[in-house]
Amino acid sequence: MCFRYCECMTDSDLLESRWAAISARLIADGADALILSTGFDLVYLSTYDARRSERLTAFVAIPGATAAPRLFVPKIEMPEVPRSPAFEVAGWTDDEDPVAMIADLIQGAQRVLVSDEMWAHYLLRLKALMPDTQFVSLSDSLGGLRSVKSDVEMQALQTVGTLANDVAAQIQRGEVPLVGRTELEIADDVIARLLAVGHEQVEFCIVASGPNSASPHHNPTDRVVQPNEIVLFDFGGKHRGYCSDITRCVFTGVVPDDVASTYATLKKAQQAAVDAARPGAALGDVDAAARSVIADAGFGDNFIHRTGHGIGTEVHEQPYVKAGNDDIVVVGHAFSIEPGIYFEGKWGIRLEDIVIVLDDGALRCSTTEHELVEVHA
Amino acid sequence: MCFRYCECMTDSDLLESRWAAISARLIADGADALILSTGFDLVYLSTYDARRSERLTAFVAIPGATAAPRLFVPKIEMPEVPRSPAFEVAGWTDDEDPVAMIADLIQGAQRVLVSDEMWAHYLLRLKALMPDTQFVSLSDSLGGLRSVKSDVEMQALQTVGTLANDVAAQIQRGEVPLVGRTELEIADDVIARLLAVGHEQVEFCIVASGPNSASPHHNPTDRVVQPNEIVLFDFGGKHRGYCSDITRCVFTGVVPDDVASTYATLKKAQQAAVDAARPGAALGDVDAAARSVIADAGFGDNFIHRTGHGIGTEVHEQPYVKAGNDDIVVVGHAFSIEPGIYFEGKWGIRLEDIVIVLDDGALRCSTTEHELVEVHA
Repeated sequence: MCFRYCECMTDSDLLESRWAAISARLIADGADALILSTGFDLVYLSTYDARRSERLTAFVAIPGATAAPRLFVPKIEMPEVPRSPAFEVAGWTDDEDPVAMIADLIQGAQRVLVSDEMWAHYLLRLKALMPDTQFVSLSDSLGGLRSVKSDVEMQALQTVGTLANDVAAQIQRGEVPLVGRTELEIADDVIARLLAVGHEQVEFCIVASGPNSASPHHNPTDRVVQPNEIVLFDFGGKHRGYCSDITRCVFTGVVPDDVASTYATLKKAQQAAVDAARPGAALGDVDAAARSVIADAGFGDNFIHRTGHGIGTEVHEQPYVKAGNDDIVVVGHAFSIEPGIYFEGKWGIRLEDIVIVLDDGALRCSTTEHELVEVHA
Repeated sequence: MCFRYCECMTDSDLLESRWAAISARLIADGADALILSTGFDLVYLSTYDARRSERLTAFVAIPGATAAPRLFVPKIEMPEVPRSPAFEVAGWTDDEDPVAMIADLIQGAQRVLVSDEMWAHYLLRLKALMPDTQFVSLSDSLGGLRSVKSDVEMQALQTVGTLANDVAAQIQRGEVPLVGRTELEIADDVIARLLAVGHEQVEFCIVASGPNSASPHHNPTDRVVQPNEIVLFDFGGKHRGYCSDITRCVFTGVVPDDVASTYATLKKAQQAAVDAARPGAALGDVDAAARSVIADAGFGDNFIHRTGHGIGTEVHEQPYVKAGNDDIVVVGHAFSIEPGIYFEGKWGIRLEDIVIVLDDGALRCSTTEHELVEVHA
């Protein structure tokens, strides 16, 4: 399947300019070759959203070479593979060894970067054929090919962010009935709304009510939503290949004081991280900005995950906003800021926007109410 | 999500007996530890169909140890993880390094088997922490954990095979209108029928008409089916966690002589491979049985893929029926036998059944007409 995520994506010039930029980064890194298997890095450099399977698909590129990168694909997939002057396509048959073909192409390479998601099966075979070569995980060296978004990509993220924002606003306005319906019924409703506003597909939809809201990655169940409890929504989809992701909580009644004060801490923490997300800051400092507010309020142990993740053509991608990440925030980064506070078996809250980093700070892609809205629906 | 694919799958005894059997194979292999990341091997030993993500989930087991295997999961997923006496669950937080936790658990191991699909990112980190340890791809050593099916699993494959067979029969009886509809419309129709007969989900649905039938993994398009051409169907779904997979071709008119004679070769080749699929044969010999019939008829270059793939909880799994595979066919193997003959840009044909290997040979899971049926629909 050819995955066209911008109109411009059919333009070989774009692919070639992306490869030229990455090639320069590889040379600076001292890498002799790059191997991408299936996934969105491959889409980024070829538009090809290859089938994930036991048959290897691999994009093999040598920085600075005059020859174009070569895309090795199972021969039976060849009729479905997009073509471009930006890369050559080579098919392998079931009685051939694609790993040997790759080793032959990059023979003599001393340092080879491989995409994080490449199967261990193939890496181990490659290592056996090239025992003196150092193989390095792409994210451990370059930190992600797609972390810095172009203007077109930033616009795409804002556009899709607006779509998810619209559905969150519908929920906050009470247009989605909650009390008396199951989480699964509500999730179906939200999914339909995400599609109705313009997403082409829905990537995920968490509806977590009452005690289920204490589970950050809760899968919707047949639990019936009750009056006077939290309902946490965290959902996103794709529009023209780019992802949305937003979290809002609502309360099915009058918010009790303890919930209100805890939520105030959460909102303050989220704002602190948004404020900290400026060019030149370390990603770990953005995490710390949210975490310190929550810890100072006594809830440090209840914030059980990182502050955020990069987003683009994948919901989760580089860079990660987490403790210990010394990588620097730069203009064009796009990531979630989503602190949470969870009380196991009782309730939990999270507040999330996607932000895009500009020269003067972070721009939110979603702006609907950040308070804990009371919904009587 | 807890993935229960048999009623008995909730039984810890089953998980423990599976681990005991695999533990014995690991000891015979000389392996000191096994690491499974996400995928169906993990489901097989834990029932846990873990989210594929940048956060590592890993099942780490030491053969012969008194301690139960340990399942490392991102802490935020813990409320969704199934529990069993058959394994311990350990959560890691975003500021912890799960790879270091694994290295600590298996310290001193000399030979470690890792699941084929483990991300290179994690394998490289593990290798850096354990430079003297040999890491080996699971399929390169044991050839697949799940290749030999139990009686219950064989029954499950027969059951789901019957469902797909029913839909193929509907197509052969002309109950699915073809001429004048697009491949995509027909695929939607077939998908609805696959669900209607009892599949809980559809895994794939190839509808390839006219020249598109020459592309083995064709994605349905808006091409309108014409009179007097091949329409190739290859589809499958899941029922109680086990997969179906069947291919039949039909002809929208009177079959011309050249197509009829080529199809006769294909049918003969498929039967030859089914006959060859007996305990004690090499898997490569099963492939050769089909391939030699096709080559003898002059179409060797037109059979551009392996003869088949294992099937179970995944559509494609070990063992693979391909040239050079010296592994031996045993009772309990389940795989496809699906030779094809393709004329690029013109037309192609394929014939596929799933077979289960019993003491006295291969049992087909689909039995609907193997001839090239003329359909006037």
